[in-house]
Amino acid sequence: MSTSELPDDHFRPTYEEIHVQIGEAAQRIKNDFDPDLMVAIGGGGFYPARVLRTFLKKPSALDPSKLRNIPIQAIGLSLYEEVSGTSEGQIGNEVVRTQWLDAKTVSGKGVKGKIEEGKDAGGLLGKNVLIVDEVDDSRTTLQYAYNELLKDVRSAISALSEEEKKDLAPTRFAIFVVHNKNKEKRGTLPMLPDGLPKEQEEIQNGVCTAVRYFAGAEIDDVWCCYPWEETDIIEHNRLAALAKEIKARQASTN
Amino acid sequence: MSTSELPDDHFRPTYEEIHVQIGEAAQRIKNDFDPDLMVAIGGGGFYPARVLRTFLKKPSALDPSKLRNIPIQAIGLSLYEEVSGTSEGQIGNEVVRTQWLDAKTVSGKGVKGKIEEGKDAGGLLGKNVLIVDEVDDSRTTLQYAYNELLKDVRSAISALSEEEKKDLAPTRFAIFVVHNKNKEKRGTLPMLPDGLPKEQEEIQNGVCTAVRYFAGAEIDDVWCCYPWEETDIIEHNRLAALAKEIKARQASTN
Repeated sequence: MSTSELPDDHFRPTYEEIHVQIGEAAQRIKNDFDPDLMVAIGGGGFYPARVLRTFLKKPSALDPSKLRNIPIQAIGLSLYEEVSGTSEGQIGNEVVRTQWLDAKTVSGKGVKGKIEEGKDAGGLLGKNVLIVDEVDDSRTTLQYAYNELLKDVRSAISALSEEEKKDLAPTRFAIFVVHNKNKEKRGTLPMLPDGLPKEQEEIQNGVCTAVRYFAGAEIDDVWCCYPWEETDIIEHNRLAALAKEIKARQASTN
Repeated sequence: MSTSELPDDHFRPTYEEIHVQIGEAAQRIKNDFDPDLMVAIGGGGFYPARVLRTFLKKPSALDPSKLRNIPIQAIGLSLYEEVSGTSEGQIGNEVVRTQWLDAKTVSGKGVKGKIEEGKDAGGLLGKNVLIVDEVDDSRTTLQYAYNELLKDVRSAISALSEEEKKDLAPTRFAIFVVHNKNKEKRGTLPMLPDGLPKEQEEIQNGVCTAVRYFAGAEIDDVWCCYPWEETDIIEHNRLAALAKEIKARQASTN
């Protein structure tokens, strides 16, 4: 069997393949959701969020002929990994916050510095918020991130005056992952059907009751070796190319 | 002139080249500085921090035969870009905070969730902190990030009891950028000489008085097209390969 040339059955996407997939997903995300800002789940979401930003630029408010980047806020969540200070039983069972958004970042009120002078002063309220991660494996981390951000947004909205509430656009959430693994999920998300028109969304107390979900690709429940996790990227690319070659060889002999 | 095959004189490093350079720098960073955590300046620092993490793993406290990731904290700074709400005159002249570390993250005291139960409860105090960005162009953003983090650390240390201060290891800062542009800098950093033994560092009130500086590569003052900023990564790689081919051709005819 020619697959013995490979050390294992791991899936090895290259940087270029993932980059292209993110670009393709960005078009769907722009059409269906049009995000105002991203919340990247670190460390896995950092690379996809950075590449997505390239494809999700918006016309500048100062000069609409120019494009501007949409902001990225980062949160830190750890599920499978050891964080210093966690006890052994916690690893893999619980989501641990290593960084979170402060109340001002959620509400956009009283943001320090010159940003507050502007009309559109940041914050999550009234925005289309895209949560970004690397892979949707058990869905535990994504469920946690969505539920906790939703909680913070609801609490910030409830602190607004009636007048402020009236002026506020609905807050929407969507999720983007590079890969969604087709497997049974431990976490759940209230999903909107693909391509649902915005008018058909249900809004409750200023927040959309469900999320839009985008994946760069659907994959089987295989071990995925991300290029940014490799110490030897040249070998990674060699094995990625070899796996494709073997697949093509097998297809041509069948 | 054969360079007319290229659209411009921009520098186009590939993902793989940058990945390899980050891996090489990581060895020097580990030897000279041995970081406990990273502070990634978003969005540019997100990709390099994520790749660096792969190369900077440390033995686990729970099981020293296993390696664990070091934490990444993210801050958001904007210099050249428009942030919604900034006024026109601000762009390119000032550094604007779009995300920052809260006081608990700096001090490591009272961090919410299970992390606080551990001995090594996060925070910047007493740690080797590596600030990570994409490129050192004018040095303005790096100066801002270092000065402000230093200010926060000094203020957190001054709030400690005398006993806590006595037990605290020195806090050290270092900087890593993928590329340092060889040009006159507007920002300044108090630099430690390369490879200075740790014993020769000057510590004042619990903080090292200068920073270690690491760059993946020194480059000329050219326009650099990072792969994560490209909408067409295939064309980027084609132009990168073509530029190398032209250079080799020219070298062989000279």
